[in-house]
Amino acid sequence: MATLLRAAPISQRIVEDLTQKCAELKKSGTTPHLQVMLVGEHSPSLIYTSNKKKFMEKIGATCDIHKLPADVSEEEFIRDLKRFANDKNVNGLFVQLPLPKHLSHLDVGQMVPYEKDVDGFHAQNLYAIMAGDTGQKALVPCTPKGIITMLKEANIELEGKKAVVIGRSMIVGKPMMLLLTNFNATVTLCHSRTKDLQRVCQDADIIIAAIGRAKFLDNSFLSPQKNQILIDVGINHDENGNVCGDIDQDSVMDFCEILTPVPGGVGKMTILSLGENLIKATENQIGKLK
Amino acid sequence: MATLLRAAPISQRIVEDLTQKCAELKKSGTTPHLQVMLVGEHSPSLIYTSNKKKFMEKIGATCDIHKLPADVSEEEFIRDLKRFANDKNVNGLFVQLPLPKHLSHLDVGQMVPYEKDVDGFHAQNLYAIMAGDTGQKALVPCTPKGIITMLKEANIELEGKKAVVIGRSMIVGKPMMLLLTNFNATVTLCHSRTKDLQRVCQDADIIIAAIGRAKFLDNSFLSPQKNQILIDVGINHDENGNVCGDIDQDSVMDFCEILTPVPGGVGKMTILSLGENLIKATENQIGKLK
Repeated sequence: MATLLRAAPISQRIVEDLTQKCAELKKSGTTPHLQVMLVGEHSPSLIYTSNKKKFMEKIGATCDIHKLPADVSEEEFIRDLKRFANDKNVNGLFVQLPLPKHLSHLDVGQMVPYEKDVDGFHAQNLYAIMAGDTGQKALVPCTPKGIITMLKEANIELEGKKAVVIGRSMIVGKPMMLLLTNFNATVTLCHSRTKDLQRVCQDADIIIAAIGRAKFLDNSFLSPQKNQILIDVGINHDENGNVCGDIDQDSVMDFCEILTPVPGGVGKMTILSLGENLIKATENQIGKLK
Repeated sequence: MATLLRAAPISQRIVEDLTQKCAELKKSGTTPHLQVMLVGEHSPSLIYTSNKKKFMEKIGATCDIHKLPADVSEEEFIRDLKRFANDKNVNGLFVQLPLPKHLSHLDVGQMVPYEKDVDGFHAQNLYAIMAGDTGQKALVPCTPKGIITMLKEANIELEGKKAVVIGRSMIVGKPMMLLLTNFNATVTLCHSRTKDLQRVCQDADIIIAAIGRAKFLDNSFLSPQKNQILIDVGINHDENGNVCGDIDQDSVMDFCEILTPVPGGVGKMTILSLGENLIKATENQIGKLK
């Protein structure tokens, strides 16, 4: 039976590490500050941003949620964003998505300065990953960053491994593919037009499922003798309304070596990555001033 | 026996197309102008830049090669680069590489404005490819762009195909991988740490070899029944001093469906891509002014 690779024990270690780094930064005169912009009253967004604020405060950083009404004008939204972008007391900045329809055409990831882009969406940060950065300097998108952390924590060697990434989004699939390549894995990037996905997966050592379809990947995609490692990025609801991943956990449990559960797996890592990015951003900004 | 997919017949079509587009741009008041910066007397660079100038003039564009002495100061080099960057009569700009040692730390690809970056090295252009552009607006690195042109010209459908890219450089492998993904191929990016490269290649429909080792890929990497398409990016010299690719042409000829020769294949396409990028850059710049 597969070992479940859970976020909780990793979380504890990272929180301690971030708390210490935060204390050091404060000692040297800077309290890492995260600025969140939240437009409207979208209930999941209210919860997400409040969780992020709580987490930042837990590690000793500060966080402000700047709330704007759902009908805020584009002009006003951009004015506020620019103010935070230029405020030297703001170390990390992000706009909680989704935005209301009248603002959704804005590519906010490119409007946040790349040094403060704790979401890792900016062209400059993605370019850095493309150029080989594994998060030394660049701010890496939170989900792929969290997955790398989990793999490292479980002492999974990536070099020379065959990895299959299913899903080619800019937030997960593509940066994941580039990061794994930077760690010397051989990566195949799969998507909705991939033919014979089962065979491609059967051939992999590591499968990262970022498909967005409940329990899509079952044991017919696996090769039990390969001791495969399955990373589940999905957050879906099953027919009974329960949270589930892109991987059918019951089906694969006896057919793989390691599996990240949903809930309690990758999803829990993103907030940790956000914290790491805030600290990294702050350190980079101080380094620049020196 | 494999069909050789040569650049020459494609070249003719593209030259006609570019000549026509150039004439149209001139009619509307703009003659596309390429500015090249050349430092020192590196002989291959002298030939490359002179060939590029000849090509641009052939399609009706203009090209100036700005020569600087090998010992030019960093300050002077940057001053000239900035002058060209800001000159509205310069539509395309690139620095011929390699640079002398004392300048080689400069990331010139990022110093050229992305709108004039006909080499396609700028973060903004690579980001655009990552975000799904196939060359509609972005300036795509010349070699991958040329390969896509060849595949399209030969009516090779990319959607659903398994492609293997060998080599993960920023100039060829990585943009190639992203472009093929944008055309809905399923791509595996291989490199020096890939294990069992032969098996990975045997499983592919399309193999792009950008390894830099003479005649590295022979028929032991192929599955004859798969009618594979082989694209050879290498430009090496064999034991007799003759130009050869990364693929052992004699060895694979009876084991694949289509092969690009070396010389006369991919290498000849890059200058065409450069011309296409100059025209695209000029069109984008005029579109912006409108």
